[in-house]
Amino acid sequence: MNKNSPMICETAEAMSERLPKAVALLGAGAIGGGWAARFVLNGVDVRLHDPAAGAVERVQEQVANARRAFRRLTLAPLPPEGSLTVADSIGAAVQGVELVQESAPERSELKQELLAAADHVTAPEVLICSSTSSLRPSLLQARMKHPERFLVAHPFYPVYMLPLVELCAGLRTAPEALVRAAEIFRAVGMHPLVVRKEIDGFIANRLQEALWREALWLVHDDVATEQEVDDAIRYSFGLRRAINGPFRIGGGGAGMRRYMQQWGPMLKWPWTKLADVPELTDVFLNKLAEQADARDEGLSIGKLEEQRDDRFVAVLQALRSQNYGAGETLARWEEGLRKRAPKLDSNSGPLRMRILQMSSDWVDYNGHITESRYLYILGLATDNLLAHIGIEGEYRSKHGSYYTVETHLAHLGELHAGDRVQVLTQILGADSKRLHLFHVLARDGDDAPAATGEQMLLHVAAGTGRSGPVQDPVHDRLIELTRLHADLPRPARAGGSIRLR
Amino acid sequence: MNKNSPMICETAEAMSERLPKAVALLGAGAIGGGWAARFVLNGVDVRLHDPAAGAVERVQEQVANARRAFRRLTLAPLPPEGSLTVADSIGAAVQGVELVQESAPERSELKQELLAAADHVTAPEVLICSSTSSLRPSLLQARMKHPERFLVAHPFYPVYMLPLVELCAGLRTAPEALVRAAEIFRAVGMHPLVVRKEIDGFIANRLQEALWREALWLVHDDVATEQEVDDAIRYSFGLRRAINGPFRIGGGGAGMRRYMQQWGPMLKWPWTKLADVPELTDVFLNKLAEQADARDEGLSIGKLEEQRDDRFVAVLQALRSQNYGAGETLARWEEGLRKRAPKLDSNSGPLRMRILQMSSDWVDYNGHITESRYLYILGLATDNLLAHIGIEGEYRSKHGSYYTVETHLAHLGELHAGDRVQVLTQILGADSKRLHLFHVLARDGDDAPAATGEQMLLHVAAGTGRSGPVQDPVHDRLIELTRLHADLPRPARAGGSIRLR
Repeated sequence: MNKNSPMICETAEAMSERLPKAVALLGAGAIGGGWAARFVLNGVDVRLHDPAAGAVERVQEQVANARRAFRRLTLAPLPPEGSLTVADSIGAAVQGVELVQESAPERSELKQELLAAADHVTAPEVLICSSTSSLRPSLLQARMKHPERFLVAHPFYPVYMLPLVELCAGLRTAPEALVRAAEIFRAVGMHPLVVRKEIDGFIANRLQEALWREALWLVHDDVATEQEVDDAIRYSFGLRRAINGPFRIGGGGAGMRRYMQQWGPMLKWPWTKLADVPELTDVFLNKLAEQADARDEGLSIGKLEEQRDDRFVAVLQALRSQNYGAGETLARWEEGLRKRAPKLDSNSGPLRMRILQMSSDWVDYNGHITESRYLYILGLATDNLLAHIGIEGEYRSKHGSYYTVETHLAHLGELHAGDRVQVLTQILGADSKRLHLFHVLARDGDDAPAATGEQMLLHVAAGTGRSGPVQDPVHDRLIELTRLHADLPRPARAGGSIRLR
Repeated sequence: MNKNSPMICETAEAMSERLPKAVALLGAGAIGGGWAARFVLNGVDVRLHDPAAGAVERVQEQVANARRAFRRLTLAPLPPEGSLTVADSIGAAVQGVELVQESAPERSELKQELLAAADHVTAPEVLICSSTSSLRPSLLQARMKHPERFLVAHPFYPVYMLPLVELCAGLRTAPEALVRAAEIFRAVGMHPLVVRKEIDGFIANRLQEALWREALWLVHDDVATEQEVDDAIRYSFGLRRAINGPFRIGGGGAGMRRYMQQWGPMLKWPWTKLADVPELTDVFLNKLAEQADARDEGLSIGKLEEQRDDRFVAVLQALRSQNYGAGETLARWEEGLRKRAPKLDSNSGPLRMRILQMSSDWVDYNGHITESRYLYILGLATDNLLAHIGIEGEYRSKHGSYYTVETHLAHLGELHAGDRVQVLTQILGADSKRLHLFHVLARDGDDAPAATGEQMLLHVAAGTGRSGPVQDPVHDRLIELTRLHADLPRPARAGGSIRLR
């Protein structure tokens, strides 16, 4: 138990981020593979050490799943992927890394031994973390020579989707190790939460398990099938749990007092005493397994994982639309990705959007990209320009943003699923409120445009719903870019109208 | 315990729905008010009986909240609202209703008395349900003369948002009462779940409480603040709980066995023994209240409720995009709303597209319908016109179809989720290959357009990828319609171009 914990919590929860160049992963099961996917897709080189047969292939599968999920999750510019290399010893894995993350099976002797070995061959300034979901860090660091750089960093499955990582210091952990770990995990899109006291199981798993134990009793006693227990959760308070735990009642302390007064006594009612552990007899295990089989829809594990990820993506995006909870973490990660992305080359020509691959679900019955998706892509290009001139989170909420008032779209060629396209955006003019753009959308490497789009945007002041002048520093950047673009040739289609003859 | 429960579960979970004309609500607190909102917005007349001062006003507030939330939640045509009337006696409230729903405070004597009184004055074929969150139906129906029409129908707060309603029969409940109740709750967008055995607290609350009890210990023991407990949940497994309970592991029975083998033993570890109840001492209650106060963002209860509902709406819509869980319930409810909505007919003048309700997942981060969806709607209007002149399956495959080559879109007003819009399409001109259209998109009943869209289409011959003349019989119909539309006034915006000055 570290006495400085509350202070550390605050420091660790500051917003600073630090993306490592390389990390070593010891153990490449479901958790290690998820770490690999998260790091690689964030542009971090991963050195993997796992003696088990087929470990790398399983990791590559997780990376492929994560790649698919990340494409759906965000439009922010993902960096070039980090490398994934296999090291045949711990010593080889830890060369030049900033973090060693251990994700071996949940057996304390095994972990102690592995961590002591890693400690022995790793330079003392390198962080070492364990993914343990239950074991105390003081126990795990017992045999290390440099235990001060060790802590628990417990993630959740699938690691590339769920943002929480619980950080827990042992008796001999240095406070700054927590801070440094938090910076790294934040940079790869996670939400580090410092556990104030060292306890077995940390926070989230104790809560999960309490629920699971009660759920097992309900099935054990035939009150419900396992499907019905799942339904009871996902159709009711489960919807709330993506948003909050049980403590967000509203009305501050007074609300909390009223709530505790109303519901607290129920904690002692007879029906809350089933907190013993049901015996995991063969009969009970058979019942669970049979119910699970009956629910199986005949889908492959791969397809089930895709479905699961699609659902996570949808819920995460929903929360992002509210800029709330895990959605806020996502938004912050995207901001980091945008900041770290190489700056677009804006001085020499039109603004260039990153390459975008046409999705197969954008196809209409003719097999072409459906017409409204062209406007969607132009919208992304406009967002890209707006981000470039500084219209992002803070500016948006304080000053406002641009809204499209007119678009003139010309289709000049067909696009198909899988085509890689790029949009070049040129500012044709701007005044205090209006912004006149011209987009050229072309296949990557193709000179002939597939479409052009001319747009007029209006600056709308935050919270008013009315037009208002663009504010600094955006105004300055816009003026500068407009001046640069004034030297570009004016597109022939600009100012055109639709006429039959 | 009803021996027929599994059979009833299946029957009750069939898809049939039955929307009642009127219901009586006894008790108008947080739960009764939520019932009122759900019923009224589904077009059901509500008779409210609650002797408490200010009850009606609080119910009206909930109805207003729900109205706002439903507008965001769905694009399906909501019916005209049911009436909300106050009855000064139980006898007056139950006149002509199909369901009496009791939502009095959670005290068994009070509920028994109220239910006996309701039973006495209500025709025996009318269903009577209790919203109790903990009391057994056999206990509640003890003093009723017609206990066979009584069951527990336990909803979740806020009742107008969360779809689950747990149905629990008592010893003397008739099986068909469960079926009828399920039909009614399904018709108002809920997911009825039949509890197979009569137990205190039913299913979801036992699970919620297990988690809450563990959460209280974590705060009690200073492992985490209440904020940190909430964070640990919403950034990790809470995201999963909107999607599934703890039993959806994947891989059927074999997956379940592996999972139980891996994690089952942990149920017995020392850290799972904190299942006693923490004493709710003043010191502990003060700590909870102080932490809750420290988190309070100074927002009014009304604002907090709005935020909460917006977050629920976002998560529900995310799940609907996956047609999954609570999202599937939402989709089914919308289908019912659409079926029950009155049909619209077409008339002369510009071609009138059927009324379309703006989908809540078409909303961008500003809360407006995202710009590409305007083009999507124009695409539907164009398809509507093409179908009207005979461009359908056979013509398409034999002769070809029209493709959009240019669109000039002007945004003149904002659209929001739930808005009902209509597009009027006018032919401005046509030649052997080209078709010049003008669309006006307006909210239903609104003269001012929300957008206009001018389009040029080109007839492309089947299988050639090249333009070719339109063929009969489409050609004839097109000529006829073009001639008719030539008499209509030419839209002022037709032929316009985008210019800064």
